[in-house]
Amino acid sequence: MMPAKFTNLEALFYPHSVAIVGASKNPGKLGYHVMKSLIRGGFKGELFPLNPRETELFGFRAYPSVLEVPQEVDVAVVALPAQMVPDIFRQCVAKSVRGIVLITAGFKEIEYEYGWQLQDEIAELANQAGIPVIGPNTFGMINLGAAFNASFTPEFSDVERGGISLVSQSGGMAHMIAFMAMEEHVGFNKIIGIGNRCNVGFAELLEYLMEDQDTQAIAMYMEGVDNPRRLVEVAKKARGKKPIIVYKVGKSQISDKASKFHTGSLAGQYEIYHGAFRQAGILAVGSLEELLDTAKALVSCPLPRGNKVAVLSGQAGPGMAACDVCEEKGLVLAAFSEETQRRIKRALPPLAIRTNPVDMGPAWYSPEAIREVANSALGDENVDAVVLCIAYASANIGAVEGLSEVLKNWGAKKPILCCLSSPGEIWDGEIRSLEEEGVPNYPTPERAARALGNLLRYQKLARRGLGHE
Amino acid sequence: MMPAKFTNLEALFYPHSVAIVGASKNPGKLGYHVMKSLIRGGFKGELFPLNPRETELFGFRAYPSVLEVPQEVDVAVVALPAQMVPDIFRQCVAKSVRGIVLITAGFKEIEYEYGWQLQDEIAELANQAGIPVIGPNTFGMINLGAAFNASFTPEFSDVERGGISLVSQSGGMAHMIAFMAMEEHVGFNKIIGIGNRCNVGFAELLEYLMEDQDTQAIAMYMEGVDNPRRLVEVAKKARGKKPIIVYKVGKSQISDKASKFHTGSLAGQYEIYHGAFRQAGILAVGSLEELLDTAKALVSCPLPRGNKVAVLSGQAGPGMAACDVCEEKGLVLAAFSEETQRRIKRALPPLAIRTNPVDMGPAWYSPEAIREVANSALGDENVDAVVLCIAYASANIGAVEGLSEVLKNWGAKKPILCCLSSPGEIWDGEIRSLEEEGVPNYPTPERAARALGNLLRYQKLARRGLGHE
Repeated sequence: MMPAKFTNLEALFYPHSVAIVGASKNPGKLGYHVMKSLIRGGFKGELFPLNPRETELFGFRAYPSVLEVPQEVDVAVVALPAQMVPDIFRQCVAKSVRGIVLITAGFKEIEYEYGWQLQDEIAELANQAGIPVIGPNTFGMINLGAAFNASFTPEFSDVERGGISLVSQSGGMAHMIAFMAMEEHVGFNKIIGIGNRCNVGFAELLEYLMEDQDTQAIAMYMEGVDNPRRLVEVAKKARGKKPIIVYKVGKSQISDKASKFHTGSLAGQYEIYHGAFRQAGILAVGSLEELLDTAKALVSCPLPRGNKVAVLSGQAGPGMAACDVCEEKGLVLAAFSEETQRRIKRALPPLAIRTNPVDMGPAWYSPEAIREVANSALGDENVDAVVLCIAYASANIGAVEGLSEVLKNWGAKKPILCCLSSPGEIWDGEIRSLEEEGVPNYPTPERAARALGNLLRYQKLARRGLGHE
Repeated sequence: MMPAKFTNLEALFYPHSVAIVGASKNPGKLGYHVMKSLIRGGFKGELFPLNPRETELFGFRAYPSVLEVPQEVDVAVVALPAQMVPDIFRQCVAKSVRGIVLITAGFKEIEYEYGWQLQDEIAELANQAGIPVIGPNTFGMINLGAAFNASFTPEFSDVERGGISLVSQSGGMAHMIAFMAMEEHVGFNKIIGIGNRCNVGFAELLEYLMEDQDTQAIAMYMEGVDNPRRLVEVAKKARGKKPIIVYKVGKSQISDKASKFHTGSLAGQYEIYHGAFRQAGILAVGSLEELLDTAKALVSCPLPRGNKVAVLSGQAGPGMAACDVCEEKGLVLAAFSEETQRRIKRALPPLAIRTNPVDMGPAWYSPEAIREVANSALGDENVDAVVLCIAYASANIGAVEGLSEVLKNWGAKKPILCCLSSPGEIWDGEIRSLEEEGVPNYPTPERAARALGNLLRYQKLARRGLGHE
């Protein structure tokens, strides 16, 4: 690896000027969508659309090639056919471009030998010049923190800004994660599609993102890596500094085979990967949903000190569903202190489960009682974390508002994972305000409990790295 | 069981006249919310609010008691304190009321002996008169098919009308399922909270819903049952006639204990339950989400003839995630016929995975190519079911519309489970129209694949009952 590449990564993610190679006003061309993305994303720097047949595009002056641009160009986003790419790279090198986003497909993922040759050729050009390349065969990358949407999907800019950065080996999965994130208000900083990995893969991005001030947690969607050992080394060095969560597919033989065709590398043996992840302190999860839920918990909550959970619920059923998942994930139901138990018994009528889980249902008409239950459970030394589940039921419409202050007070000290469920947008305002204070919400009790289980798993992984074991 | 009770269940779900015992204009009373529900639900029959201190409520003439109502009363919805309930029941018997929804709590779920005594007393009254009672300690019940919302939550009426009926032992879970159903446009017919089960439990409702024309599939949320043998017998009799799906909590010891307090019966040994479910042809699932996803698939799709699936995707990653889950759930990737393989190779460029899973990504600019791929896979004798995953990406905005006709044509013949994922509402119209034609959509590839796995599991369970094994 060129030493320049790493500092050039900074320029790639935070450019002052961007050339779009293949910019077009024809919606049938990807260069059209890339222009739309950059504009919709609100990029603050200079944009130079490149197209030999245009003098102006989307209100910007167009140039025939990057060599004609009268100013420095930090990043080139390339969306022209594969066979043109080596020449474009040569021009980029001549222009001292610092980073390239290569959207074009048709390299080592195709069935023909020349795809591999082409990729080798451009990799050599880029490596010699120390230019980091995102792609080829990618949707691109988005740095929401710098309003820089270098992808062919303008809607990526609608994802909320937050602390998670995603490195994805599949464009489709990155899109799906982003759309779910919009729906569930999960904030991202960078979203990167590595595609066929010319010279920037998981290891390089992990190394970069570990130092990136804007990234609090790193989520990865993985099919296979070329150099797993290097990935493990990079992750190990950073163990305990920042959470890394990975969703690795290729459990089945068939998807393993598919992976080879898709991105040119075998998904490899699933179990071996998982052993390596554990060793490196990387938290492995089993689905797209779990990846998002876990990343959200990790950027929202403090880590639990231990495995003792209190399950508080507005109705018994959701509390029980949460208990099942908690126990499955290695959490135990905390035994309340005598003091806590006394306070809860005083607050709740004898109609409900008052140990742990606590069914607060019969007390919904008394906001003080509910607050007292939550406060005493959260203040109990024996409680490391809380799962709180409440279903809206017309009569309890004020429930979340009533608990809000208590939850916000404790949210920074102990993880509180909620499933506050209401029809339509009834509780959305309260939920958003809780999430802003570090109290995340999930659509089901099971998902809240599973996310807590993963917080605990990560806490153990991280401690091990810091010599606590 | 009284013989009258069963025909009375019909009157309970489809009443012509309803008395609300404890109707109130005070939002602090559940009787207020019940009135709101009946009105918002658009109930077409007669409503008689009962309240000795009012002559009129919500524009309806109020009466002091059910005995004063000058017409027949089919159903009484009761929302007054527990100690008043025996007298109310006596009045209902005298008035020949045919069914009761008893929302009131404070019976066998409480810590004191008198709760049990009270429940025994009212059960005897109801049983002698052959009156089926939903509850006590329930949110009530909703028959969306008859615009009859006899619950304390008006928003239940916003759930779309459809073929699933839900029997839930937890009000909280029923609410959460209903809110998710609204979000994901899953239609329900009846939603019933059985509460403490005075004389109507799982077995009675199963028996009734099995004959109910409006119910195509029965979903159950279960904590524990008093008489599992009877439940198994009822289910066995109906095996293969209508799908029954159950989500049973109480896997952990602690939620088992909680269940005892909550509804007065132990959740019991999880494994024993699961053995009984298998025996009875009941499909067991592991989460609220899976319950909803599976029920949706069962009312939308035909059952797969076998376990051979084709995974078609707009991008390789989501297809691989779907493959992993398919294989985990006992499905195998179909080997295409030579004819199909030839047609797909002709339709797709050599840039993509063209076996199975099929990555249709590189052909998004050619709607004909995509249609050809879908059509040939769906028409292949070797293919029993299809999972189709496409992430929106600006340039492929027309993808779903282009495939729509093919999918609708095949939707009634083979199960097609989709994950069509777009930001905001971009594809909502197309997705809704597909769902109306029996092609269900799921938020993630894994959830679509898991739902298909459950269709296959149910097909096996049902066949066994019909002597096919």
